[in-house]
Amino acid sequence: MSGCPFLGGTLQLLSSNPRQAEEEDGSQGGVNKAAKGGIIYGDYLQLDKVLNAQVLQSEQKGNKIHDEHLFIVTHQAYELWFKQILWELDSVRDLFIKKHVRDERNMLKVVSRIHRITMIFKLLVDQFAVLETMTALDFFDFREYLSPASGFQSLQFRLLEQKIGVADHLRVPYNRRHYRDNFHGEESETLLSSEQEPTLLQLVEQWLERTPGLEKDGFNFWGKLQANIEEGLKREKHQVEKMEDTEVKQELLEDLNKQMETFTALFDSKRHEHLLSKGERRLSYKALQGALMINFYREEPRFQVPFQLLTALMEIDTLMTKWRYNHVCMVHRMIGSKAGTGGSSGYHYLRSTVSDRYKVFVDLFNLATFLVPRSWVPKLNPNIHKFPYTAECYDSSYNSCSSEDSD
Amino acid sequence: MSGCPFLGGTLQLLSSNPRQAEEEDGSQGGVNKAAKGGIIYGDYLQLDKVLNAQVLQSEQKGNKIHDEHLFIVTHQAYELWFKQILWELDSVRDLFIKKHVRDERNMLKVVSRIHRITMIFKLLVDQFAVLETMTALDFFDFREYLSPASGFQSLQFRLLEQKIGVADHLRVPYNRRHYRDNFHGEESETLLSSEQEPTLLQLVEQWLERTPGLEKDGFNFWGKLQANIEEGLKREKHQVEKMEDTEVKQELLEDLNKQMETFTALFDSKRHEHLLSKGERRLSYKALQGALMINFYREEPRFQVPFQLLTALMEIDTLMTKWRYNHVCMVHRMIGSKAGTGGSSGYHYLRSTVSDRYKVFVDLFNLATFLVPRSWVPKLNPNIHKFPYTAECYDSSYNSCSSEDSD
Amino acid sequence: MSGCPFLGGTLQLLSSNPRQAEEEDGSQGGVNKAAKGGIIYGDYLQLDKVLNAQVLQSEQKGNKIHDEHLFIVTHQAYELWFKQILWELDSVRDLFIKKHVRDERNMLKVVSRIHRITMIFKLLVDQFAVLETMTALDFFDFREYLSPASGFQSLQFRLLEQKIGVADHLRVPYNRRHYRDNFHGEESETLLSSEQEPTLLQLVEQWLERTPGLEKDGFNFWGKLQANIEEGLKREKHQVEKMEDTEVKQELLEDLNKQMETFTALFDSKRHEHLLSKGERRLSYKALQGALMINFYREEPRFQVPFQLLTALMEIDTLMTKWRYNHVCMVHRMIGSKAGTGGSSGYHYLRSTVSDRYKVFVDLFNLATFLVPRSWVPKLNPNIHKFPYTAECYDSSYNSCSSEDSD
Amino acid sequence: MSGCPFLGGTLQLLSSNPRQAEEEDGSQGGVNKAAKGGIIYGDYLQLDKVLNAQVLQSEQKGNKIHDEHLFIVTHQAYELWFKQILWELDSVRDLFIKKHVRDERNMLKVVSRIHRITMIFKLLVDQFAVLETMTALDFFDFREYLSPASGFQSLQFRLLEQKIGVADHLRVPYNRRHYRDNFHGEESETLLSSEQEPTLLQLVEQWLERTPGLEKDGFNFWGKLQANIEEGLKREKHQVEKMEDTEVKQELLEDLNKQMETFTALFDSKRHEHLLSKGERRLSYKALQGALMINFYREEPRFQVPFQLLTALMEIDTLMTKWRYNHVCMVHRMIGSKAGTGGSSGYHYLRSTVSDRYKVFVDLFNLATFLVPRSWVPKLNPNIHKFPYTAECYDSSYNSCSSEDSD
Repeated sequence: MSGCPFLGGTLQLLSSNPRQAEEEDGSQGGVNKAAKGGIIYGDYLQLDKVLNAQVLQSEQKGNKIHDEHLFIVTHQAYELWFKQILWELDSVRDLFIKKHVRDERNMLKVVSRIHRITMIFKLLVDQFAVLETMTALDFFDFREYLSPASGFQSLQFRLLEQKIGVADHLRVPYNRRHYRDNFHGEESETLLSSEQEPTLLQLVEQWLERTPGLEKDGFNFWGKLQANIEEGLKREKHQVEKMEDTEVKQELLEDLNKQMETFTALFDSKRHEHLLSKGERRLSYKALQGALMINFYREEPRFQVPFQLLTALMEIDTLMTKWRYNHVCMVHRMIGSKAGTGGSSGYHYLRSTVSDRYKVFVDLFNLATFLVPRSWVPKLNPNIHKFPYTAECYDSSYNSCSSEDSD
Repeated sequence: MSGCPFLGGTLQLLSSNPRQAEEEDGSQGGVNKAAKGGIIYGDYLQLDKVLNAQVLQSEQKGNKIHDEHLFIVTHQAYELWFKQILWELDSVRDLFIKKHVRDERNMLKVVSRIHRITMIFKLLVDQFAVLETMTALDFFDFREYLSPASGFQSLQFRLLEQKIGVADHLRVPYNRRHYRDNFHGEESETLLSSEQEPTLLQLVEQWLERTPGLEKDGFNFWGKLQANIEEGLKREKHQVEKMEDTEVKQELLEDLNKQMETFTALFDSKRHEHLLSKGERRLSYKALQGALMINFYREEPRFQVPFQLLTALMEIDTLMTKWRYNHVCMVHRMIGSKAGTGGSSGYHYLRSTVSDRYKVFVDLFNLATFLVPRSWVPKLNPNIHKFPYTAECYDSSYNSCSSEDSD
Repeated sequence: MSGCPFLGGTLQLLSSNPRQAEEEDGSQGGVNKAAKGGIIYGDYLQLDKVLNAQVLQSEQKGNKIHDEHLFIVTHQAYELWFKQILWELDSVRDLFIKKHVRDERNMLKVVSRIHRITMIFKLLVDQFAVLETMTALDFFDFREYLSPASGFQSLQFRLLEQKIGVADHLRVPYNRRHYRDNFHGEESETLLSSEQEPTLLQLVEQWLERTPGLEKDGFNFWGKLQANIEEGLKREKHQVEKMEDTEVKQELLEDLNKQMETFTALFDSKRHEHLLSKGERRLSYKALQGALMINFYREEPRFQVPFQLLTALMEIDTLMTKWRYNHVCMVHRMIGSKAGTGGSSGYHYLRSTVSDRYKVFVDLFNLATFLVPRSWVPKLNPNIHKFPYTAECYDSSYNSCSSEDSD
Repeated sequence: MSGCPFLGGTLQLLSSNPRQAEEEDGSQGGVNKAAKGGIIYGDYLQLDKVLNAQVLQSEQKGNKIHDEHLFIVTHQAYELWFKQILWELDSVRDLFIKKHVRDERNMLKVVSRIHRITMIFKLLVDQFAVLETMTALDFFDFREYLSPASGFQSLQFRLLEQKIGVADHLRVPYNRRHYRDNFHGEESETLLSSEQEPTLLQLVEQWLERTPGLEKDGFNFWGKLQANIEEGLKREKHQVEKMEDTEVKQELLEDLNKQMETFTALFDSKRHEHLLSKGERRLSYKALQGALMINFYREEPRFQVPFQLLTALMEIDTLMTKWRYNHVCMVHRMIGSKAGTGGSSGYHYLRSTVSDRYKVFVDLFNLATFLVPRSWVPKLNPNIHKFPYTAECYDSSYNSCSSEDSD
């Protein structure tokens, strides 16, 4: 970009990094590089690679089709951004894995990076508009040459799904094949080894389970909440029962009963296990409790940033399904609903993946089902229940629990 | 992307391209390729190049900074899209250069491709939102390492400006240096040779000069328009002069005089030359007339698609300035208004380029100054002035002027 | 907006509308109004109405909740834009109904207005992002007060669906009730009377049926196309049969057979009627032929703007389903998947409407299934088959078929 | 919207608001309303007002122009959203005025609402794309009728600028008139009285001045920072001076001197007063220190949300200038650069308002000029400098400093 953020970046070497300067002992080398050469724009971005990676198959086959270039560039842009998303995702997972999140000072970093992923996904959703300037007829002119290349073979997209936490057994199979069958050799191994690592879902789950205030012998949030809700509903029922017999009363009673069922189910850990096994819930029971707690006390300083994290995680889920849905819309336009050669229709397959089965943080969405009036939420006594924002590491020395400086 | 447009692309080889099949004499080679191997996704997109082009300078210098990866990927995505824009731009310029636009059948292609460029620019404007998830502090951590790389060194962006028609002498000089001084060797030559080629502005200008209806011995649009406007203004003045003397009358007279000046200037070819020399107009006088004609008769079948073209060209100008402006906003956030080391501030320089001097199709915008009531527009007699949509080539044989099939 | 398009609108009265001035006989009235008073911004926009229409139910009930204001304003903005969409839609339908489209000069208007509808829908899709700044918890605080108001009761949205052509029998019933049951009195009548009018789908269908070149005794596009495709497929089959027996050959043969089936079905009018009755096709057989013809000859001057129209119609369909999908995503976030009191879940109901059943122009999407190599498309002889852009009205006098000036 | 968030809102009355139910003593009234009537969609949104406020002046004058409807609706949508922005802005200002921000529990609310304003502005920037579907020619057909209505007369936009903190003396005057001269009677008074209230800028300033850690007798951030920077620069200079005499050394020394000047100026309170008087700085010296402190320690739990606030405030500034710039672009397209009748051109006036003079939080942007290496930032000793997230109110009883429940 013209004069971009690089702008005026010259010659700050010593002044701006004294630490390094010291280490290098006033190294002339560094100075020379800054002054004489250093790195220039095109080399820095390795544009020789990036801008020479567009080979049109149609041209190779002797029938150059103009629009294939757009097709290639669009997909390369998708893959570039997927790489960036993986970069952010891995760094966030790493912060969790290394327990850095126990130092609250790292929470801003976690939230910012998850937020960045959502911003990228927004761009990727919009990016379809560019590819859609190509008509079905333009695409038809070269799609024969692409065979058997297929978006199913995007390793990065699969890694992304996998690392966030899309469950293997919840995937819709395509032509009765496992999604990993589209990959071979090194790629297949990368997928396999990624499957051994903890997913973002699992890491968030562990973190939620540690939410302060869940301790049964402490604030005992869950126990208190159950008591409050039961009492609240009972009181309501009592009031309704005092009413004259009317249709209205009937409806209110029915409604109350439904609510009681809902909450009875919420406090039934067996039922939770059952829903877990069906894939309708994904978080452990304790993590679910933590998430609800963060929702209810989101204004407590201790919970403000964690609440932002939960919101951003839902945003990722939503944007991934929007991405899928926009993809489906484009495919419908490009190849119709009948196309796809092997077995089932590609369009219908893709459509089936726009499903809550692919929503990893579905529990966070469904928390909305369990909201209660503010007055039912267990009261905090601020003198006792401080949930201090500063976690355990502050007790030890500063350095042993320092913020992740250069990751 | 998961199962993307490639979807189900397999095995259509013979069936979908019989022409090729014939030429190749039922070539087994083709069949084998389709069935056995063909090209797979990652190879097709050359992802080994694209996804291995992210080398962090901070890491090279032993101080890996997380956000540099975003910085690199964002710029690479910009460059990828610049390449696509150049691809479209060159193809459109080629259609003009080879006179293919005389066959009206190619106008849809021209408009579609210009439209595609605008869609890409919209994405690029939005793309800043992703980079802006990086704070000034995050950027500070690695910007020293980038020296002296600078967005000024983006060859593609300069080519893009140049090919559209940004005038060399209208550019704002940076530190009193010519923009080409940022480039060396092969890059400098590429720029120089590009400067020898006709710009989009020049090609559109030539095309506009040929607008049917401008012929003095034919419909004589310009002559008729001048007569109508002069008569119209005279009649209005006459009416106003009959009014009682009031402040209102005074205002109306002043206003009318201003309008008369405006239109007198419009019909003064000397004045046009003067404005051209100052860079306030960029189109030849005749081309300007053609553009106004297309505006007035935009509903004539002959002019509908040309009118869309003029609209899309303004859109490109607008989006390029929006891109510049968004860039400026980001730079302000990243380095403040004082930063930049050599001479003038980078921020203030960039700000100065968000200027109408960089608007190539400024004349099309200013046509809005010369609109007149519909009743003043010279009437077409459809029996005589058909402006048939089908141009000269239709008189000759079909094949000699065929649509550009595979460009 | 600060100084917005109104800018400098003063005092152009006489000069810019001489026709009216003449009629009004130099009317002093007009002059005075322009100079002294005229209309001011707030009155013009009736801001006293628009900006005093935000009454918070929560406040009325004595428990003012901050976020209800956002909820109201967002919905009012939706309704404002729905009104604009209906305005455009009605004007386009009217152009079709009054046969103005037979004058090709009106096609630009039709395409521009349909395009405008798509631009509005894009904004409406983005608009969810604003409402989503409200969390489920914020919504919970006031949603009780809204009862029984429901988006199901948006008259304009139903009119919009209905006027475009969403088929009554293809709608997903909500709690086994007809969608019209949500409306009463005047609103119900408005819906009923709207159902008597021709839908956009029907009007486009009639227009497509008149596509020049479909005449059996003329160019006979359909007959020629069928012959070409049958011959093409036969020739391909012949070639494949000559190949050695391999797995590849088997696959190619299977694929060819599938293609033959597809095209046999296309040319079978009985099958079309069957699909029509099931709602899988919506256009008449002849209209489908016209649409395919416009696709194949889209570069002919005569068909360029019609092709843009077909593209824009698909865009509307796509954007409406994206709107629905974004709506579903928001509802999931706000009330979870279990919420909704009466019978089935609101979330699941809404989800079911993100369906191809609601795609009105589904046939245009599915045309992509019937593409063939360019060489199979029947050749035009330009000396004979001119499809002149200028339609019948040009034969008669200019005035009798004039462009719609002030609609 | 179809079945929108209202969905299933029925009959939750008693169950979901027991507190109210208690107060109302099981009020039958409430029950009846919920069950029998309550409020329906159209009445709730007062659609009779909102959807009957579109009166076309062109139609009134007997020459109905289709596109005027779009013009009206677009402006009404802008005004609706301006009202929402004012709603959020007033609520945030109120939180500051009433000192609620001293309870850290309200910071999430402040940040969320400021963030919501940015989301609305993003929509408003995009909204121009809809109005831009109207061409200059379409606008010309009715713009005469609008006189003398002008966007300058948008009271809400002026209030918005004023309440955020656009300084009266920094505004670009239009035709040498004060901006308030466009308003009369009640509107003028509203503006005047708004000018008496504290602006967002002033409130944020006061809040920044209280940043913990600025106390001279405490952590003394400013004093420590100055010492560190001076020492750092001195050490660097020393190192450079030891180098051999080369051109490089010369450049490094010049650069260092420039940096020394920059920082000397930063620590010079007189210079700050001077810049303040010129309008190049807007925050008090102490507030500026607070802002820089929040930037440097943004990862401290105590400063994470405050840092988000500063970022969001810059975002508002940026989006307002983007809004202005997009407005300018549209005006250029609609009326050209010469149009506007009285005195100076409207286009050029608007262009002049896209200026840093209108950036309220310009100091936050310019902080980027004063960044230093992390190692120069004064170290916190966490045992001593805790900046506890929980502010003074926690010392007193919980209730006396409670979160703003129903605002």
